Amino acid sequence: MKAGQTMTLDVARPLEPHVAPVPTIGDEDALNALVALVGDDLAACNHTIVARMDSPVALIPQLAAHLVAAGGKRLRPLLTLASARLCGYPGSAGGARHVALAACVEFIHTATLLHDDVVDESALRRGMASANAVFGNQASVLVGDFLFARAFQLMVEDGSLRVLGILSQAAATIAEGEVLQLVTQNDLSTPEARYLDVVKGKTAALFAAACQVGAVVAERPADEEAALAEYGLNLGIAFQLVDDALDYAADQATLGKTVGDDFREGKITLPVLLAYAAGDARDRAFWRRTIEESAQQDADLQHALELMAACDAIGMTAAHAGRFAAMAKSALKVFPDGRWRRALMEVADYTIRRAR
Amino acid sequence: MKAGQTMTLDVARPLEPHVAPVPTIGDEDALNALVALVGDDLAACNHTIVARMDSPVALIPQLAAHLVAAGGKRLRPLLTLASARLCGYPGSAGGARHVALAACVEFIHTATLLHDDVVDESALRRGMASANAVFGNQASVLVGDFLFARAFQLMVEDGSLRVLGILSQAAATIAEGEVLQLVTQNDLSTPEARYLDVVKGKTAALFAAACQVGAVVAERPADEEAALAEYGLNLGIAFQLVDDALDYAADQATLGKTVGDDFREGKITLPVLLAYAAGDARDRAFWRRTIEESAQQDADLQHALELMAACDAIGMTAAHAGRFAAMAKSALKVFPDGRWRRALMEVADYTIRRAR
Repeated sequence: MKAGQTMTLDVARPLEPHVAPVPTIGDEDALNALVALVGDDLAACNHTIVARMDSPVALIPQLAAHLVAAGGKRLRPLLTLASARLCGYPGSAGGARHVALAACVEFIHTATLLHDDVVDESALRRGMASANAVFGNQASVLVGDFLFARAFQLMVEDGSLRVLGILSQAAATIAEGEVLQLVTQNDLSTPEARYLDVVKGKTAALFAAACQVGAVVAERPADEEAALAEYGLNLGIAFQLVDDALDYAADQATLGKTVGDDFREGKITLPVLLAYAAGDARDRAFWRRTIEESAQQDADLQHALELMAACDAIGMTAAHAGRFAAMAKSALKVFPDGRWRRALMEVADYTIRRAR
Repeated sequence: MKAGQTMTLDVARPLEPHVAPVPTIGDEDALNALVALVGDDLAACNHTIVARMDSPVALIPQLAAHLVAAGGKRLRPLLTLASARLCGYPGSAGGARHVALAACVEFIHTATLLHDDVVDESALRRGMASANAVFGNQASVLVGDFLFARAFQLMVEDGSLRVLGILSQAAATIAEGEVLQLVTQNDLSTPEARYLDVVKGKTAALFAAACQVGAVVAERPADEEAALAEYGLNLGIAFQLVDDALDYAADQATLGKTVGDDFREGKITLPVLLAYAAGDARDRAFWRRTIEESAQQDADLQHALELMAACDAIGMTAAHAGRFAAMAKSALKVFPDGRWRRALMEVADYTIRRAR
């Protein structure tokens, strides 16, 4: 398999040559199906997001709109909405708590994106210029703070201390994960378990909280709350593993970010750890120079991709992701079969298919 | 009066020559008296701060300790503790809610300092190297996020939605104030009212919330809650006005930050607005070049100080601060006389005396 191509996430055939990374219509179906199923609730959530990111200080909605316009998949709020419905919450006609809390989840996510872009000095986010590139680091930090505070205001209006507890815990865990990522940066001796701690913190914690909150608003018993949290946690890990694989595999136009961003930043992700572990002395010297010493030359990314191809680092990362996605689906077994459970299971499949 | 000297805040004699800006023992008495009065509660609050800024991610307590070690006056948590006691809350022997919430207030304050240092690229904070200068902007943003989240976790443990509402609103207002400051930066056409909005947001909102929370834990009626919020708001405005005056007046060793920081950053503060308004065409050209166009030369700060001295910009700023301090004291009249009310009134006097 040639370097630079994306590789399949089918664990049984990880080394097969692979065609274009552009998702087929079928690949998007799972998410489209969920969006259709959620229906008016997502529209109501989008309305809440736009209404509540407003401020008399015009730069705040302007900058926030830049991200909203960039049009994320709204995956995290979709999870809150679908989890609530899975737990029997009546939908926006019968109540709107899940809509407001889905907006909270998106605000927290957007705030971390804004702060993450400052941190990573990324030039691209969702295929558009990142907010900090357009508005400056200063505004990105402060508007992130505003959205974070606004999320808590929305939760206070909702009035559930349980929800406030879940999402404030998630927010603290996200920050811990991001700091841990900073600490492990450029450090090839980072154990795989530590990398997983980073992934759990920076990504999976909010997925878990987003799902758990759905059970809380529906006032379901502890085992269902725990099951949704477990689903979200494993889904989030799978999602991030695929993201880390895509950074060494995806077509730039498809992924909406530059291929090799993680490489250039010396970020420690599973593909790098696997390739480093599989390498001989000369390969390891290459990784130390490029990742630990940040002494990179033009051809280095290409060589990194070749080393990863040689040891199937992307295929193994995808296989890992597949296992977490399977655990996510398994967690949903406490719920009876039905369209909401099926939709959430399909989201796990979609997450894995993204890398194809 | 020579430029570069500090000016008295005594409104009646604003143009008199003034001696050293180092506070006399008497100047510190008010705060020392409050610290003595608060007693064990402040020690308990410091204990909570250290215990709850801990994390398995070692860089978080390390960076947070850098700020704690820098030893702020703990003015905001002191206000929460004293306000609670003024309202009859029994003190840490009889309850500890005010202690935990005072720690929350300090966490929120510390988070905004960390983010503010990133924003301002300040080299000094409380006379020590700022956290971002030592640990980098990335860590400062993320540890700020952690402390902010941790503050909300503490509030959730406290269990009052009213407190959560007050402090989440304050957090949103702080971010709005900081963004507004960013928008007005380098803009000499900023109206004085807009500058006051910045001050209310970035500084006074947290002072107000810190005091109001004291009434909430003591379960006092709405008028006492409102009175403490008004006291805090006006005290915070006075505090910031004095800070802005000191930036053009204080001895560097006393203030713990570089004199002229605001000038170099093109920050729009009252001394600048007053000097610009009082200036002739040549003076205004000077202010436009230095503040709006950021084209500064070595002798410019000295000339700015001379222009301010000529129109008594520092004295007028101090007079403004004095009026807000008087309003702060006046707001406390709904409470009966006693040692706590006297202590809080003395804090208002102390705030003004800082600039002497």
